[in-house]
Amino acid sequence: MHFASDNSGPVHPHVLEALTEANTGYAIGYGADAQMDRLRDKLREVFEAPEAAVYLVATGTAANALALATLSQPYQTVFCSDVAHIHEDECNAPEFYSGGAKLTLVPCGDKMTPQGLRTAIEKEENRGVHGPQRGPVAISQVTERGSVYSLAELQALTAVAAEYNLPVHLDGARFANAMVSLGCTAAEMSWKAGVDAVSFGGTKNGCMGVEAVIFFDPKHAWEFELRRKRGAHLFSKNRFLAAQMLAYVTDDLWLGNARKANANSTYLAEGLRKAGAEFLHKPEANMIFASLPRASHQRAFDAGASYHLWDGPLEGLGDEMIGARFVCDWSISAAQIDQFLALI
Amino acid sequence: MHFASDNSGPVHPHVLEALTEANTGYAIGYGADAQMDRLRDKLREVFEAPEAAVYLVATGTAANALALATLSQPYQTVFCSDVAHIHEDECNAPEFYSGGAKLTLVPCGDKMTPQGLRTAIEKEENRGVHGPQRGPVAISQVTERGSVYSLAELQALTAVAAEYNLPVHLDGARFANAMVSLGCTAAEMSWKAGVDAVSFGGTKNGCMGVEAVIFFDPKHAWEFELRRKRGAHLFSKNRFLAAQMLAYVTDDLWLGNARKANANSTYLAEGLRKAGAEFLHKPEANMIFASLPRASHQRAFDAGASYHLWDGPLEGLGDEMIGARFVCDWSISAAQIDQFLALI
Amino acid sequence: MHFASDNSGPVHPHVLEALTEANTGYAIGYGADAQMDRLRDKLREVFEAPEAAVYLVATGTAANALALATLSQPYQTVFCSDVAHIHEDECNAPEFYSGGAKLTLVPCGDKMTPQGLRTAIEKEENRGVHGPQRGPVAISQVTERGSVYSLAELQALTAVAAEYNLPVHLDGARFANAMVSLGCTAAEMSWKAGVDAVSFGGTKNGCMGVEAVIFFDPKHAWEFELRRKRGAHLFSKNRFLAAQMLAYVTDDLWLGNARKANANSTYLAEGLRKAGAEFLHKPEANMIFASLPRASHQRAFDAGASYHLWDGPLEGLGDEMIGARFVCDWSISAAQIDQFLALI
Amino acid sequence: MHFASDNSGPVHPHVLEALTEANTGYAIGYGADAQMDRLRDKLREVFEAPEAAVYLVATGTAANALALATLSQPYQTVFCSDVAHIHEDECNAPEFYSGGAKLTLVPCGDKMTPQGLRTAIEKEENRGVHGPQRGPVAISQVTERGSVYSLAELQALTAVAAEYNLPVHLDGARFANAMVSLGCTAAEMSWKAGVDAVSFGGTKNGCMGVEAVIFFDPKHAWEFELRRKRGAHLFSKNRFLAAQMLAYVTDDLWLGNARKANANSTYLAEGLRKAGAEFLHKPEANMIFASLPRASHQRAFDAGASYHLWDGPLEGLGDEMIGARFVCDWSISAAQIDQFLALI
Repeated sequence: MHFASDNSGPVHPHVLEALTEANTGYAIGYGADAQMDRLRDKLREVFEAPEAAVYLVATGTAANALALATLSQPYQTVFCSDVAHIHEDECNAPEFYSGGAKLTLVPCGDKMTPQGLRTAIEKEENRGVHGPQRGPVAISQVTERGSVYSLAELQALTAVAAEYNLPVHLDGARFANAMVSLGCTAAEMSWKAGVDAVSFGGTKNGCMGVEAVIFFDPKHAWEFELRRKRGAHLFSKNRFLAAQMLAYVTDDLWLGNARKANANSTYLAEGLRKAGAEFLHKPEANMIFASLPRASHQRAFDAGASYHLWDGPLEGLGDEMIGARFVCDWSISAAQIDQFLALI
Repeated sequence: MHFASDNSGPVHPHVLEALTEANTGYAIGYGADAQMDRLRDKLREVFEAPEAAVYLVATGTAANALALATLSQPYQTVFCSDVAHIHEDECNAPEFYSGGAKLTLVPCGDKMTPQGLRTAIEKEENRGVHGPQRGPVAISQVTERGSVYSLAELQALTAVAAEYNLPVHLDGARFANAMVSLGCTAAEMSWKAGVDAVSFGGTKNGCMGVEAVIFFDPKHAWEFELRRKRGAHLFSKNRFLAAQMLAYVTDDLWLGNARKANANSTYLAEGLRKAGAEFLHKPEANMIFASLPRASHQRAFDAGASYHLWDGPLEGLGDEMIGARFVCDWSISAAQIDQFLALI
Repeated sequence: MHFASDNSGPVHPHVLEALTEANTGYAIGYGADAQMDRLRDKLREVFEAPEAAVYLVATGTAANALALATLSQPYQTVFCSDVAHIHEDECNAPEFYSGGAKLTLVPCGDKMTPQGLRTAIEKEENRGVHGPQRGPVAISQVTERGSVYSLAELQALTAVAAEYNLPVHLDGARFANAMVSLGCTAAEMSWKAGVDAVSFGGTKNGCMGVEAVIFFDPKHAWEFELRRKRGAHLFSKNRFLAAQMLAYVTDDLWLGNARKANANSTYLAEGLRKAGAEFLHKPEANMIFASLPRASHQRAFDAGASYHLWDGPLEGLGDEMIGARFVCDWSISAAQIDQFLALI
Repeated sequence: MHFASDNSGPVHPHVLEALTEANTGYAIGYGADAQMDRLRDKLREVFEAPEAAVYLVATGTAANALALATLSQPYQTVFCSDVAHIHEDECNAPEFYSGGAKLTLVPCGDKMTPQGLRTAIEKEENRGVHGPQRGPVAISQVTERGSVYSLAELQALTAVAAEYNLPVHLDGARFANAMVSLGCTAAEMSWKAGVDAVSFGGTKNGCMGVEAVIFFDPKHAWEFELRRKRGAHLFSKNRFLAAQMLAYVTDDLWLGNARKANANSTYLAEGLRKAGAEFLHKPEANMIFASLPRASHQRAFDAGASYHLWDGPLEGLGDEMIGARFVCDWSISAAQIDQFLALI
């Protein structure tokens, strides 16, 4: 009954096997290995972007912070949702990597709207050197609340960015989950939708610790390489990052895993609905935000369930509804979900 | 014939097995996992430091830059050898992580001497706010030239630091190689010798990608945790870092590997000596800097040998001696060494 | 008819005279001059703070950014009003000087409330290393909308900060204007109200370009000195900063100027009220935010008046009300105000 | 007998008068004032550079650090003399403003040579992402040891920079002193000699606190403006900076002052030579490094002379020669120099 996060689950067997297979003798380090060459080709194919610059790091925060630092200047501001991971959960990493850029929060609580984004961008108008300058637009897909932007919604946001000549970054920590939710291609959900750079997550969907950063315009490549090294995110034994991600994108493992995770979430959401849960956001991928009676949470936790309460503590006497976040990964079994549902 | 670096070699089978074993179901993320608890205990035992703060990151540059940033202020300068890895090979990571601190180079070319260190420290005297303030002393053990400070030499350096109340960091990317070279304990080569924080390397000696940072005074713990997260070096699936390092320090695998690497290096050095090589530094661990005639290099490279020339290109017609760096890891076979020696 | 800003006005004759008087031969540089000694004593007397650390810089942004950097860590967040000067008008200077700290905006549009501040602080609860850590609370007095916190309001805010052990910085670019508005002492409006550090403005109230930074706890002194020098804000000819501020606080020039500025503003506000203006904020010092019909603005601008429209351009045909900001300094004449009022 | 620094002397009367004249009513702030327009034209004329971007700040460190930050990237290194002001006397300001770039010291002790510079640049060759990338070359003219590069020497240095496509910054804190020493034009000593940006000092030569930053290629203009504001070096009452510098460059006041300072220095050097002083560097502008017997220093200090000993303390019994730095500004009188010479 592990719904705390999709990063607390196991590594997919294929990924582990790939590590073992990669462990054959010597390999040149720092990203010049043959595995990396194969992976670059493969990801360019997946994204239908033969010119794309492709790099690996080991954490999602590194992918986001390095990508945004490459796309911005320290006297600029990054436009993002007010619940964006880059704002709430990265301990100022974007500010650090960008050299002190600001994050301008678009009030939304979940999905940014074109109008909300435009208003935030417009607000920085006419301040000359006094205010921060307009910088990148950062979009999370899947959002931090489990929603998925439709392709039209994505395009509407990037169209606003384009009006102001602002680059667009997509935090795709759950890229695969969003893609199978939309039933689209990787290209459609990225550069065809106006995205300039993607953090392409592997860790939450079956890898051990690897994320790709993809720039569709290779002009950013060298700067990114330098920023990655300076940030201490260049692995000497890069082949083991590459091997993970190669296994991940081979034979559609990534999509298969994401389908399982999303299906698990749908199954859990169905059960929650029947149990009377109230949904705080419409679950569209593998994350559910829903409220349950205090007693239901208590029974679940007593039986060993693991997930995060979202609004306030469990302590108390009444039986009001308390929000919680449930995340399903590819590995959770229907039996575990059933066990949980039986408890609540 | 792979002598390019000890980070181009394979992962030790025990470490790979540990990854597989760690892959059992769910584990709480971000360093709160049970593997990390066991590792912390184990490393405290290894270092005879029951209070030590113990953290993991995936790259040596991260270990160094984060440790130094924790020990310094941005208006200070770090004293280090003029060939220190932190100066030459980290693309300004220490400057970045410290918020713009300076590195003051102690001219030495290899090992710092107490007098050289003192002179550098003294030079910053009496400048008030105008010059950088004195900050940490950073020592590499094994040095970047393959030398090993004796315990007495280490103590003499840290004594100078102590006179000026400066903290001491030890870059132990090859900690194990130095330790078996000296035949001492981990405690003797660190806090008993006056060292405040250690980057304890695993990657170059059989791990996939993991380094520990150890502060003997736990007052630095929380700041380090925040700096690690802000630097994007906190792994969600930290258990796989912990598992690697647990395997590494279990049953003295680390020391065994280091003994093999050092023995391989000694064997290679012996052969080089017989072949007429001139040594640029006395090899004391697993790295050799030696000059060979141009033609010898040419034959070796033609036959597929891999190592770095150290001073100048191979192109040319004469038969002068050209310097090179040879690094042996635990995995290189005597047969490979023999093959190489036969070529030159 | 100059209402654009209190920093576009002239320097008070006493301040200019002081510069001339200070220009007698040689003086030791970098803040060790005799003028600075006298000023330090004088400001300690003004603030009834015999231990206070007192420094000078030339711009208000420098005063704010350096003070906040001294009170914060790069992994923290500064709590401030969503219209704070440090957020809107300093081009990321606080982020730069703090090494990448975040600004958390308390929604208020003008004065922060204790409840708003508490909610913002509480929101950072329980995130461990993931979110930014709680850092200083920054309060502007006069606010950026021309309001003045009462002493009770100030104390209520600092009490919230104290509950969480957070230091408090006061942006007193218009300190004097606030003080005469409240009729209190400098001590009452600062350390007696729970403030730890003050940016004490001179430039907007008769000086040429000088602001003091005052820390009531001198433990911050040396770090501030280093940060000031590193930020390139230490003047070699510091005596000319000191001379300005000495003239400013001698014979209550600062309070006299502020009284004139506030009185000018009151007189203008009265006239605006009679002319049918709608006030966006209650003017309490020397700044007025008020709406006038488009045609009134047009006539004023045509006649050479100078001030900032606050919401939207003048272009258009209708006669709706358009907001504007009017700032009065000590030097504006009643005749100019009358001339302006006659136009609208 | 004030030879401590040319920044401890008085402000020239013309500069003070200009401040008074500039103090007429209201002026738009932040550099949009009419004085600034006139100054920009004037400096473009002085430098024969009609396209140049011209900005003002108040300290030399600000001028240098902001200019270098604009010309560099945080993963680069700045090449400079090992006694450069930016290295020794700015408390890490260049590292701070550049976001953590490194300074690579060219060993020279005074003037860089083309060969020394080339060697330093070459040393960063072939390190890929591991070492810092090559960044700007920074030259001080007058040097920190009182030497002046001839135009041919300057051109030889900038030619090396040009080979590697590196921009060149000139720290001209004593630009005027160097110019009159060489008897050349401002253009000859800057862009015609291959310099891209100049810190054009005023403070040490008769101003109160103002330095210009000049970029001969205006493409850097907007970035510099943002960095200046973010660094808190944009003055609201910029007219008073502009007025100082306008007076400074009007009627050749700057050159006249520099001639006086240099002549004073020549006169002092002559006297020192006659008194048996040994010169550590050949004085070529307004700074002298010379050794005198301990007893001579003692007599001078006892009589109130003010200057810096350069190597070691005065304490002791022997009568060895002790080095000292003597700086003459435009204002020092022949009588003072005579008085000093009589003492030694």
